[in-house]
Amino acid sequence: MEDKEISHAVISRLPRYFRYLSELKDRGVERISSRELSERMKVTASQIRQDLNNFGGFGQQGYGYNVKYLYEEIGKILGLNQKHNLILVGAGNLGQALANYVNFEKRGFIIKGIFDKNVDLHGKMIRNISIMPMNQIETYVKEYNIDIAILAIPKAEAVQVAEKLVIFGIRAIWNFAHIDLNVPQDVVVENVHLSESLMRLSYNLANRDLLK
Amino acid sequence: MEDKEISHAVISRLPRYFRYLSELKDRGVERISSRELSERMKVTASQIRQDLNNFGGFGQQGYGYNVKYLYEEIGKILGLNQKHNLILVGAGNLGQALANYVNFEKRGFIIKGIFDKNVDLHGKMIRNISIMPMNQIETYVKEYNIDIAILAIPKAEAVQVAEKLVIFGIRAIWNFAHIDLNVPQDVVVENVHLSESLMRLSYNLANRDLLK
Repeated sequence: MEDKEISHAVISRLPRYFRYLSELKDRGVERISSRELSERMKVTASQIRQDLNNFGGFGQQGYGYNVKYLYEEIGKILGLNQKHNLILVGAGNLGQALANYVNFEKRGFIIKGIFDKNVDLHGKMIRNISIMPMNQIETYVKEYNIDIAILAIPKAEAVQVAEKLVIFGIRAIWNFAHIDLNVPQDVVVENVHLSESLMRLSYNLANRDLLK
Repeated sequence: MEDKEISHAVISRLPRYFRYLSELKDRGVERISSRELSERMKVTASQIRQDLNNFGGFGQQGYGYNVKYLYEEIGKILGLNQKHNLILVGAGNLGQALANYVNFEKRGFIIKGIFDKNVDLHGKMIRNISIMPMNQIETYVKEYNIDIAILAIPKAEAVQVAEKLVIFGIRAIWNFAHIDLNVPQDVVVENVHLSESLMRLSYNLANRDLLK
């Protein structure tokens, strides 16, 4: 893994493998063939073998994959064996929805602090975390060893706030603001642009109709 | 456009073009060269020319692109010149956040009805829309000519609810449940799997550290 560049396409499929394996594990399934996995995931069996070969290949010909082992190995590759401390910046509707997602915590992503510029929200509790003013972010990030920030604020302020977060020591931003951030190359940014997703849906719907 | 298959990669870049053009238009910019567009979007100029050529190419050599025209044409390609009536199924935190996104409405996606199985929510208003019980979906979809459903319910129920929505006449589902739906091929599904996005962030963060 040290020397090999793993393609973006493979990486983008890993979370899906992880999700399926997680479901199989929860149902007590111990082994699965690439063929079975392929049927569930609607990806070809050879694609699955190729993808998993990127990571040394965990399967044995004729025996299939050990679900628990594969689950754990992919989890490690995804960095899910590590805990991460997060802050949430922006406690509007979307921010509150994200803060309430218990599942993230199960995967090791722990929201430690919630910040908003709206004074009416300060002191309000979400899952036992009190919403704090923005000027407390800096001390908080340092004190609690925060490496990830969820950015759920309007796009008008997002670029500027992101720059500050990086100065405070944040190394990764999960960006829900509908704008491209301007941060140094070594800061990880994962964008969730909901409007773009809705436009893809719209395109596919319009095109489906054309094909009729 | 009738005969040509447009690649998934191109389609996935269109909403981003649209967003940039929308910003340019709002700032009163009338023309832009592929070079300038390329610098803003961090895509090569030749990529931009290639992408836009898929749709007949709106640029003139040496003159650049007419922002308003290109904005409108891409909007049409994305089906944004049409209005869509939506329902929202699931009025938990995430559903409420989505219902409150005014931007979607600006793009022609109008939420007409909100449904939840939780009786405590029934009658509660979100942006002048009253939350209704699930058993009213069928009549509502027919009466208000709804074609898109936003699915923001837990994954345990999502597959079953999606199947019903299709029977009621829904033609596209914007799926926030963390599970793959099982609907006929001609139903458009656009998934927003937030956990998978967070895992990609986690992978990139873990890998960034390895590279140091």
